Amino acid sequence: MKGTVLYAPRDVRFEERPTPKIEKPTDAVINIAATCVCGSDLWPYRGLNPITEPTPMGHEYCGVVEEVGKEVRNIKRGQFVIGSFATSDNTCPHCQYGYQSSCVQREFMLRAQAPLLRVPLADGTLVRTPGMPSDDLVPSLLSLSDVMGTGWFAADAANVKRGGTVVVVGDGAVGLLGVLSANVMGAERIIAMSRHESRQKLARDFGATDIVEGRGEEGIARIKELTKGIGADSVLECVGTPESMAQAVRVTRPGGSLGYVGVPHGVEFKGEELFYTHVHLHGGPAPVRRYLPNLIDLVINKKINPGTVFDLVLPLDKVAEGYRAMDERRAIKALLRP
Amino acid sequence: MKGTVLYAPRDVRFEERPTPKIEKPTDAVINIAATCVCGSDLWPYRGLNPITEPTPMGHEYCGVVEEVGKEVRNIKRGQFVIGSFATSDNTCPHCQYGYQSSCVQREFMLRAQAPLLRVPLADGTLVRTPGMPSDDLVPSLLSLSDVMGTGWFAADAANVKRGGTVVVVGDGAVGLLGVLSANVMGAERIIAMSRHESRQKLARDFGATDIVEGRGEEGIARIKELTKGIGADSVLECVGTPESMAQAVRVTRPGGSLGYVGVPHGVEFKGEELFYTHVHLHGGPAPVRRYLPNLIDLVINKKINPGTVFDLVLPLDKVAEGYRAMDERRAIKALLRP
Repeated sequence: MKGTVLYAPRDVRFEERPTPKIEKPTDAVINIAATCVCGSDLWPYRGLNPITEPTPMGHEYCGVVEEVGKEVRNIKRGQFVIGSFATSDNTCPHCQYGYQSSCVQREFMLRAQAPLLRVPLADGTLVRTPGMPSDDLVPSLLSLSDVMGTGWFAADAANVKRGGTVVVVGDGAVGLLGVLSANVMGAERIIAMSRHESRQKLARDFGATDIVEGRGEEGIARIKELTKGIGADSVLECVGTPESMAQAVRVTRPGGSLGYVGVPHGVEFKGEELFYTHVHLHGGPAPVRRYLPNLIDLVINKKINPGTVFDLVLPLDKVAEGYRAMDERRAIKALLRP
Repeated sequence: MKGTVLYAPRDVRFEERPTPKIEKPTDAVINIAATCVCGSDLWPYRGLNPITEPTPMGHEYCGVVEEVGKEVRNIKRGQFVIGSFATSDNTCPHCQYGYQSSCVQREFMLRAQAPLLRVPLADGTLVRTPGMPSDDLVPSLLSLSDVMGTGWFAADAANVKRGGTVVVVGDGAVGLLGVLSANVMGAERIIAMSRHESRQKLARDFGATDIVEGRGEEGIARIKELTKGIGADSVLECVGTPESMAQAVRVTRPGGSLGYVGVPHGVEFKGEELFYTHVHLHGGPAPVRRYLPNLIDLVINKKINPGTVFDLVLPLDKVAEGYRAMDERRAIKALLRP
């Protein structure tokens, strides 16, 4: 079997790899229907996270169960399943509290940019669809594995409420699906910060009511103007840089909520500043497993179509082009088909 | 009239001051029944906040209305009132959102360690008691002005729920009243971190079920042990130092909530560390005005007796001794009677 390996910044190879097999009785092996390149894959791709050894890539996946270990009960060969980018037993206290991405047995998935994938803790990590989905639903189902699940968590962590005012910082795939999530949750006003025409269009398709192109002081001033000087009830931070976080904090109203899902790189909060903002702050790796049943239901019943965030579809062996296109912002998100 | 002025670290004087009078038609002047020294007064007293000029002190107060300005509608001469340490109009969008301590017209009160006090925005800042309270209720009513209101906000910000597990970091007056607040809110287990016998006793009186004396790694390990390795649902940070905040973050369970009310001094949160904790973070200057009606009701109906936190009562002209006793931790909190 061939799979994707990152050797060094901008050096992505699709090369021979060991074929995944059941290693523990709680494992499953799945036949990947589709996988994709994540915004977070670009951190090491750009050399912003160190690469100490050749690293097999990919953590977003859905597909058909090929084989299960002896102790797997909920999942059977032939079923179509989606799993989170973080494994979970779904029984430990953190899982029961709704934070499966902090499961005591958590592993962050790797190796999903390949035709076959071993998934540990299959019973607690994977959720099956009702029956075999039609092929046109595959992109949307795939998105639940991370990007849509993470956008949803951003909106949930930002406490989006029916009738509320929302700002989304970041027009990457997660930010765009944060717009969609806020829309589904009933926000009345959704302000997307974006300066790219194609992304602005998608944001509007997903429910953005306003677009703000300015950044920094200019962007903050514009949002204050749009919210009558008050700021937003809910702000989704979907980037992870000091600049985007500062922007997010400053457009949140006192007592409002900031949900942050961009893995912070160099972000620091000064305690005293944060104190006087009165902001609620919550974020982290999205507990996708908590949301999967509901989100699968929304996709299957065609209430949401998050798969439109994939604006580039490539055969899996062209994975390196997927990275390039996203790095150069020619594509929002690249879907890969084995 | 004489009032309290801080000239320099440890130089508190009770000296002749201008008699307060109505300056704006929205002001009231009240006859102070009792005032007190706040833990936050100790920051400048100890030289940890700079003192650039002689500063009139005191922001906790209750008493009888002496005079009101022409536009004051809700408050009348002769009524017993309590106000927040932060003024508020109680009508602006931030007030309506429940964050009166971020009111667009907010002023932080000063000058309350005196027999007479001018209160701006009287209608939005002061709340009257039903009738004239008996003298034994005065300490508890006074506490609502800041210390109890702030302990209550810490518990509320930490999302204390019936049946939950709570840790309180800090055994000052705010921390102790955080214990009381968590108890009233129905927490099942309340772990107070304290190494002072008299404070441990008061914590138990207020509803603490466990006392942890250890600090740093030792304290964290003990709390993990008490919570079966999980951490607490709700953590109240009532100090404001880097050490106390680090402790608070590390004993909060993933997905749990940390309410912080100690004004942060030198506290920094590293974004990436906070991200992986999955903690909900909320704090700031307590929106006391939001809680006053309910807390007054609890005091008047003798459901709570937060006034027991005052373990030193002095005549107002002995205010300097109140500061000394609290600075040396001989007293938890000093009440001053004009």
